[in-house]
Amino acid sequence: MSATDPTTALRQALRSAKPAPLLAAFSGGLDSCSLLHALAQDADLRRHGLRAIHVHHGLHPAADDWAVQCQVFCGALDIPLSVVRVRVEPEGEGLEAAARRARYLAFAQALGEREVLVTAHHLDDQAETFLLRALRASGPEGLAAIRPWRRFAHGWHWRPLLDVSRQGLLAYAQSQALSWIEDPSNDDIRHDRNFLRHRVLPLLRQRWPQAEAAFARSAGLMAETVELLEDADAKALAEVRTADPQVLSVAALEGLSRSRRARVLRRWIGKLDLPPLPGEGVIRIESDLLPAAADSAAEFAWSGAVVQRWRGLLHAGRQRQALPSDWCTVWHGDAPLPLPGGGALELEGGTAFAVTVRVSARQGGERIALPGRIHSHALKHVLQELGVPPWERRQLPLLWDSRDRLLAAGDLAYSADFDAWLRQSGAILRWRRHS
Amino acid sequence: MSATDPTTALRQALRSAKPAPLLAAFSGGLDSCSLLHALAQDADLRRHGLRAIHVHHGLHPAADDWAVQCQVFCGALDIPLSVVRVRVEPEGEGLEAAARRARYLAFAQALGEREVLVTAHHLDDQAETFLLRALRASGPEGLAAIRPWRRFAHGWHWRPLLDVSRQGLLAYAQSQALSWIEDPSNDDIRHDRNFLRHRVLPLLRQRWPQAEAAFARSAGLMAETVELLEDADAKALAEVRTADPQVLSVAALEGLSRSRRARVLRRWIGKLDLPPLPGEGVIRIESDLLPAAADSAAEFAWSGAVVQRWRGLLHAGRQRQALPSDWCTVWHGDAPLPLPGGGALELEGGTAFAVTVRVSARQGGERIALPGRIHSHALKHVLQELGVPPWERRQLPLLWDSRDRLLAAGDLAYSADFDAWLRQSGAILRWRRHS
Repeated sequence: MSATDPTTALRQALRSAKPAPLLAAFSGGLDSCSLLHALAQDADLRRHGLRAIHVHHGLHPAADDWAVQCQVFCGALDIPLSVVRVRVEPEGEGLEAAARRARYLAFAQALGEREVLVTAHHLDDQAETFLLRALRASGPEGLAAIRPWRRFAHGWHWRPLLDVSRQGLLAYAQSQALSWIEDPSNDDIRHDRNFLRHRVLPLLRQRWPQAEAAFARSAGLMAETVELLEDADAKALAEVRTADPQVLSVAALEGLSRSRRARVLRRWIGKLDLPPLPGEGVIRIESDLLPAAADSAAEFAWSGAVVQRWRGLLHAGRQRQALPSDWCTVWHGDAPLPLPGGGALELEGGTAFAVTVRVSARQGGERIALPGRIHSHALKHVLQELGVPPWERRQLPLLWDSRDRLLAAGDLAYSADFDAWLRQSGAILRWRRHS
Repeated sequence: MSATDPTTALRQALRSAKPAPLLAAFSGGLDSCSLLHALAQDADLRRHGLRAIHVHHGLHPAADDWAVQCQVFCGALDIPLSVVRVRVEPEGEGLEAAARRARYLAFAQALGEREVLVTAHHLDDQAETFLLRALRASGPEGLAAIRPWRRFAHGWHWRPLLDVSRQGLLAYAQSQALSWIEDPSNDDIRHDRNFLRHRVLPLLRQRWPQAEAAFARSAGLMAETVELLEDADAKALAEVRTADPQVLSVAALEGLSRSRRARVLRRWIGKLDLPPLPGEGVIRIESDLLPAAADSAAEFAWSGAVVQRWRGLLHAGRQRQALPSDWCTVWHGDAPLPLPGGGALELEGGTAFAVTVRVSARQGGERIALPGRIHSHALKHVLQELGVPPWERRQLPLLWDSRDRLLAAGDLAYSADFDAWLRQSGAILRWRRHS
């Protein structure tokens, strides 16, 4: 924090607000008391709406008293307060982490349509987070620590005080004669963060009085770095992507540096809304999929998603079952036919088949009599020639007539008879793939 | 370090060697004893040449004994050792920093033509450097800490042990029954690094036993990040640079994000071998030079260098004096004429002027009778029309005949008479600018 007086420092920090109503997280401790008080003094912010939420974790005997104190504090400032009781139920994580999870769930549920959640994270929190991330061997994304703005629930989460030190908040609270709750769990050095706060950082300050500000500044530089990296990642992804966002060009990928490629692969998977690509996935794509022979069907699967190499392409999508080989059904064409595992067949044009049509999975060895050809062709060769990738072939539905002649392979290839019938009746067959 | 035995770990670390003779820095302490011993066991490395250098700082009463011990150690391994005495003379810096400076100067002077300097920096050094850099609010370049390879003097500096912990080196030294020197200054916690080593890191290890490895891993990820950033910087610089590497397009610069632009500007200046652009320079270019009106002559100067805005361009170069306004000399054309402050005039074609030619600086108000024109023109307008940038105009030499008629403005504009003479005599006038 600069050498300005504490009130000015807080006022300046609030200038990055968006014009939206605010939901202030309010524990009643020093940090959130100072934040809420400063917010309440800002007529401009209040005009858009300002309310507070206190989460009652029920973990401390004084928790009921704390809720009352919060009511009193907000009453004096004329700020509406919701007190929300939550049940903290650790699921493998520690109590602290479970309480945090329950708290943010309550915030998400309470957040109104256009509201922005605002919390009192400050410079010392930022410094501690930076150091915790470094102790977990983080890269730039992790070391960027806490961002002032992030997407949260259906809206935004704003942390305006990241440049204000705890000392600055204390000076503000004292200058405004605020009274706040001291939660004894903040002193429990069994928590990693408190161990840093009460043991490590005081030791560092003996030699480097500005240790927290330095760590926070490094975190800020990391946030800038991440923006630069993502900017270049986006450009590189656009260069290696084909018209189908699920498919990348292997040759173009090979033109990237190894570390850029790793980032581009993770970004690609993230943009497809698939589960995050694990580190092992990047390694496997590098070692097995990219150098794969053109005719191999190399793939890497994780958490229900899969990346597959085929010809010069890399395809990502959800892992889909092949059509069951024993699946077979009759379809009249008058209504869409749902396929096992997702997708459907549809006959557009308001008509139905004149004959009984059977639909089945591929068994192998099928032949098809294509329009304008004298001899029938092996379906396998037809699909190869059409460049149908393996991830489509496995789910391809086949249409048969009552004399077991192949009418259609999805909407990719039609027999001469079926093709003529479609043209004649003005119908269009559509094979809807999985979304 | 992985769970392999210490000998294997060191052997693996040495695999990234280049095929070049090695000059090992050898203090006689644990780290360099282990390194030198491991190097000596590697027949492949020895084949290319291996020698050691011990710097005698003369700072400790036992320094003479240490030099003898080093001789004995190297003698046993049959490695030639140079002992170099240096004088440590602090210049504002601390004694430790002065000793380091003197030491690396000695290494640089001793390094042979194709030799690679090798030092025993290890994983704990890397972790300490990372933390020191964070305590100085560093960005990605600083947090990348120690690189395994860097340019040094006229060659390279290699640090093969950055993945091996101090504990690993100790295990190696004990397994090989090495004896080494304990320099008591390593325990002096007045040095920042020793304060981290003896006070901070042991505290962190209480809670995070892998703290050093985590910091070193973060440093490694930062080194990768820097490569990615520089890669994108280079591309961006190529996009904003004109045919003249000293000149950038302002419009193209404005297409970059602010943080990319800052990096591109610093890279541009660095590649021109100018003194590093200070942070204030980036700010001034952003605030004053880029938004400058087309006719303004905004500039930022630092350490003898200058960046100037002119029209849609940004020019960087050494700060040059304008030609002194009272400078005037006679030139016959038979030999190059050096200009005050650098550069020269040359008449190519093996001839000399037929008349007496006077050379002077611009005073203002000059006129020139251009070829094919009836009236004379103001030189100022001629230069404007030619698009001569201000950094050239200030140093432009003017050539006059004995009747004070302007013959030439550098090699940019000639009078009709002078132009005819040049053509007729097959001569070419060259104005060599400052390199």
